Amino acid sequence: MSKVPETVKGTRDFLPEEKIFRDEVIGKIKLVFELYGFSPLETPVLESKELLSGKDQYGDEALKLMYEFKDKAGRDLALRYDLTIPLARVVASNKDLPKPFKRYAIDRVWRYESPQKGRYREFYQCDVDIVGVASSLADAEIISCASDALAVLGIKKFLFRVNSRKLMDEILRNANVEENKIVKTLRVIDKLDKIGQQGVAKELRTFLSEASTFGVLEAIKLKSDWNRLSSKVKASEETKKEIDEFIKYLEELGVKEYIFDLSLARGLDYYTGLVFEIDAGVGMSLGGGGRYEGLIERFSGEKISATGITLGLERLMDILKKSDKKTSSEIFVIPINTLKASLQIVNKLRKGGINTDFDMLDRSISKNLDYVNKQNIPYALFVGEKELGLGKVKLKNMKSGDEEFLSVDKVIDKLNYKK
Amino acid sequence: MSKVPETVKGTRDFLPEEKIFRDEVIGKIKLVFELYGFSPLETPVLESKELLSGKDQYGDEALKLMYEFKDKAGRDLALRYDLTIPLARVVASNKDLPKPFKRYAIDRVWRYESPQKGRYREFYQCDVDIVGVASSLADAEIISCASDALAVLGIKKFLFRVNSRKLMDEILRNANVEENKIVKTLRVIDKLDKIGQQGVAKELRTFLSEASTFGVLEAIKLKSDWNRLSSKVKASEETKKEIDEFIKYLEELGVKEYIFDLSLARGLDYYTGLVFEIDAGVGMSLGGGGRYEGLIERFSGEKISATGITLGLERLMDILKKSDKKTSSEIFVIPINTLKASLQIVNKLRKGGINTDFDMLDRSISKNLDYVNKQNIPYALFVGEKELGLGKVKLKNMKSGDEEFLSVDKVIDKLNYKK
Repeated sequence: MSKVPETVKGTRDFLPEEKIFRDEVIGKIKLVFELYGFSPLETPVLESKELLSGKDQYGDEALKLMYEFKDKAGRDLALRYDLTIPLARVVASNKDLPKPFKRYAIDRVWRYESPQKGRYREFYQCDVDIVGVASSLADAEIISCASDALAVLGIKKFLFRVNSRKLMDEILRNANVEENKIVKTLRVIDKLDKIGQQGVAKELRTFLSEASTFGVLEAIKLKSDWNRLSSKVKASEETKKEIDEFIKYLEELGVKEYIFDLSLARGLDYYTGLVFEIDAGVGMSLGGGGRYEGLIERFSGEKISATGITLGLERLMDILKKSDKKTSSEIFVIPINTLKASLQIVNKLRKGGINTDFDMLDRSISKNLDYVNKQNIPYALFVGEKELGLGKVKLKNMKSGDEEFLSVDKVIDKLNYKK
Repeated sequence: MSKVPETVKGTRDFLPEEKIFRDEVIGKIKLVFELYGFSPLETPVLESKELLSGKDQYGDEALKLMYEFKDKAGRDLALRYDLTIPLARVVASNKDLPKPFKRYAIDRVWRYESPQKGRYREFYQCDVDIVGVASSLADAEIISCASDALAVLGIKKFLFRVNSRKLMDEILRNANVEENKIVKTLRVIDKLDKIGQQGVAKELRTFLSEASTFGVLEAIKLKSDWNRLSSKVKASEETKKEIDEFIKYLEELGVKEYIFDLSLARGLDYYTGLVFEIDAGVGMSLGGGGRYEGLIERFSGEKISATGITLGLERLMDILKKSDKKTSSEIFVIPINTLKASLQIVNKLRKGGINTDFDMLDRSISKNLDYVNKQNIPYALFVGEKELGLGKVKLKNMKSGDEEFLSVDKVIDKLNYKK
């Protein structure tokens, strides 16, 4: 090859220093998902194009973003663009799965977008979904779980924007938006962040009356706690009661960071009820989700309730403080003409649960210390003949510079105690 | 869609009961890899076809197995078939990576093979590699690490078959195999497990003399410890000394389960020195690897030593005893007309570190217990009004059937103590 090969457009490598931190973040998210009783499900990255391209799933716009291709046998396939459609497929084809089915997945998805700063074609989603519960208790549980995940990651400022598609439908009807224009209207509202209120007004006017446009614009200005908002909107008592209940469940599960926001529409077409989005004040949402009552039915013929949320890993990573770990190693053993004895010490440290690396190149002490510094390994351990005779080794704390002569057992105790 | 959609040919889903166990196995492997000071690296699943199709990498046979396609822009891409070529790409394009570079990766790869029982087109490899160390100390470290990973997984019977390509080259030359037939001869030897000794003899005779065929067949019968074998083979003192050293390192790192086996050739063309394979007596190897001195140079122009091993996750899973966990949940809370108080208890259990699920469907006690049984959740917790008044809840151990009235704090202590 004439030049150093690159990654495929829109994809990137994660070197250890980033990957270690990503794994830590994923580990914390997984921990919270499991605390909430969600179990992991893994599905293949390839799906048939037919499965992924249902019109009522994703909207025409988004179908353009499918990473699709033909395989060697001419099959139309695509790399999945979310983890929700594969979940729906699994539920449809495993009818005996006990319900409720609470599943999480933290895995790769692909979208054939124009790569931009911080936006890749291959990225990770972290999903929790509850299948088989119609009650808004499930939506509250989902939000509570996502909220705890953010808290555990140390993200302090965030707000769940919540809305209801049912409520919006009624509000739009009451503003005299015709039935066949409701979805179109919601799609325009969904662009509010991008095109602003004036842009929305302009687009709405192309297919709604001036009065309807005004009604819609007034409605989507409303953001507040539900109690205050409830009295201001025109909607049926039934729908209001459903939302009352949802809010009660949110409170009972201890979720405090939320606001009812009538401008929240959510782009995906498969949402049918409550929708939610996480605003951390960083210009784009950290994730979102909602209730999708029709998606599984599309594959199975059987109506099955479902709700869920997605956290975007890359967006989370962007706002988290970076870690300074560059390697998994906690200690680096430097033999000074003592390879055989040093290897025994390496074995002992590893058996003691300490992540241990050692000099395999017979380098000088200063070169070894260079390496340890570059790799940010917290401790160096010198194994010299004289000290060995006394049953000791020299432990150097690379941060403080402190050196101690200790037995190997004491080294293990000391490093384990730090954890 | 007219019928329930299926997974793409050669791929499959992992429902929670399998996925939980897979994650446990991956967690244990990761733990050992990190104990050895290997750090994680993540690369994209897509690579350019050009990168993956170097002739000296994988052999013509294997190139047929590439899962390749054209993307929307007409790029020739493929899903990676191993984790080694992407590692070589990363090393070649990040020249300032500190060396030695010890990396691990546990991730998906794809091969467009005919799916068979237990053989899929999408599967996982678990790799450790050391880049930048020419000494066989690195090969010994790799084997020691893989050996510990198998031990931690509870696999008791396994043997590392080891061989040296250099040694084999010399043996073949000494058997008068011509220089340009050495690779071809090794490829035939590699088929020994599949076609047997007679098959190998037959194929060798098509391009080797009777005497050479005989010499090769005699050599590849040799399997024993190195000391005994060393005196029986015709090879240079230099090569023998190198192997002596490797064996010494293996012993010093505490590896006991190995045999020198001259019939081991390893299919991949990129190996240049020591090669190894894991035999667990189950008909196929659990993994293997070896030294590849030329692969990185191919991309970077700079000669960089490397060695590594791959464990096949699916093959490991096949021989491990299955776990009986079907869900992440440790306890299932059943409110008896006490939803509000129960949700507070759910919150408290989760804050106490207990994976907690609860009834969201207002089901009867017997239906809830059915669900808990089906899901193999270890404990059920009944929250009744009367007991709540006394500050207690009823904990039921689903396995023993024992029931106890405890405070929620005591429940948390009890379940945490079990961990």
